Amino acid sequence: MTLKPVRRMQANHQWEAVTPLHYKEEGSAPFKDVSRHVLFGDTHIGAELRYFEVSAGGYTTLERHEHAHAVLILRGAGRVLIGDEVHEVACNDLVSIAPMTWHQFRPADGVVLGFLCMVNQSRDRPQLPHSSDLERLRATPAISEFIRV
Amino acid sequence: MTLKPVRRMQANHQWEAVTPLHYKEEGSAPFKDVSRHVLFGDTHIGAELRYFEVSAGGYTTLERHEHAHAVLILRGAGRVLIGDEVHEVACNDLVSIAPMTWHQFRPADGVVLGFLCMVNQSRDRPQLPHSSDLERLRATPAISEFIRV
Repeated sequence: MTLKPVRRMQANHQWEAVTPLHYKEEGSAPFKDVSRHVLFGDTHIGAELRYFEVSAGGYTTLERHEHAHAVLILRGAGRVLIGDEVHEVACNDLVSIAPMTWHQFRPADGVVLGFLCMVNQSRDRPQLPHSSDLERLRATPAISEFIRV
Repeated sequence: MTLKPVRRMQANHQWEAVTPLHYKEEGSAPFKDVSRHVLFGDTHIGAELRYFEVSAGGYTTLERHEHAHAVLILRGAGRVLIGDEVHEVACNDLVSIAPMTWHQFRPADGVVLGFLCMVNQSRDRPQLPHSSDLERLRATPAISEFIRV
């Protein structure tokens, strides 16, 4: 597919010729108020660059997978669970999710969290936590307070 | 290489644990006032995400190559030559450089132009224009005025 050489950002982090998509199929996994924008999908690069936006009060799916995520926060601020720690993140911060690491993004109170995420074009499907995984994660109070499932 | 889970942006588009590099080896190609920051290099992804910053009055190399560029403008504004057109670009705009397309980035007057660029980890070396290429490019007045070599 040939992309238009320049696709401008329109108001409110929507881009020309980029259709906002559902984050995931409704009911396929727990999440709330997340949109997905494939900025560079079918490229010659073997990787994709997506923009995800989580509305105030929303959260991405708590999940892990073999593929890695390379993330740059593009809008707002929030917190992210990576493995066994919850980190605060703000605009332009870099987030690395290594393979098979539990992760979940949530905006700070009352704001939107938008981030770029680079992944392999060919990648495995995310895994959801089993009850034993949740039990292990919840043994840490800060994680127990943070995660949404 | 395992990256730190979170690397914060410090003042002025410099990142924790990311060393600003020379854009290219001095004298290897024409360019002016460009820095290179490898945000995600040796990842599990097969692609790299770099940040380039061009100071006011600077320019990237006029070049082409077989590999594609997927670009997001992260800071400031400017103009970019893509093939046979010069486009204005501003913060968060997306720029697609298809294989073997001449391209060059320049900031708008008096500002800095910073952009993210996703590329294949394994890629060919850029080609510089021969005098016949420059002649062809300069046949278009807007390009002739724009390019710096």
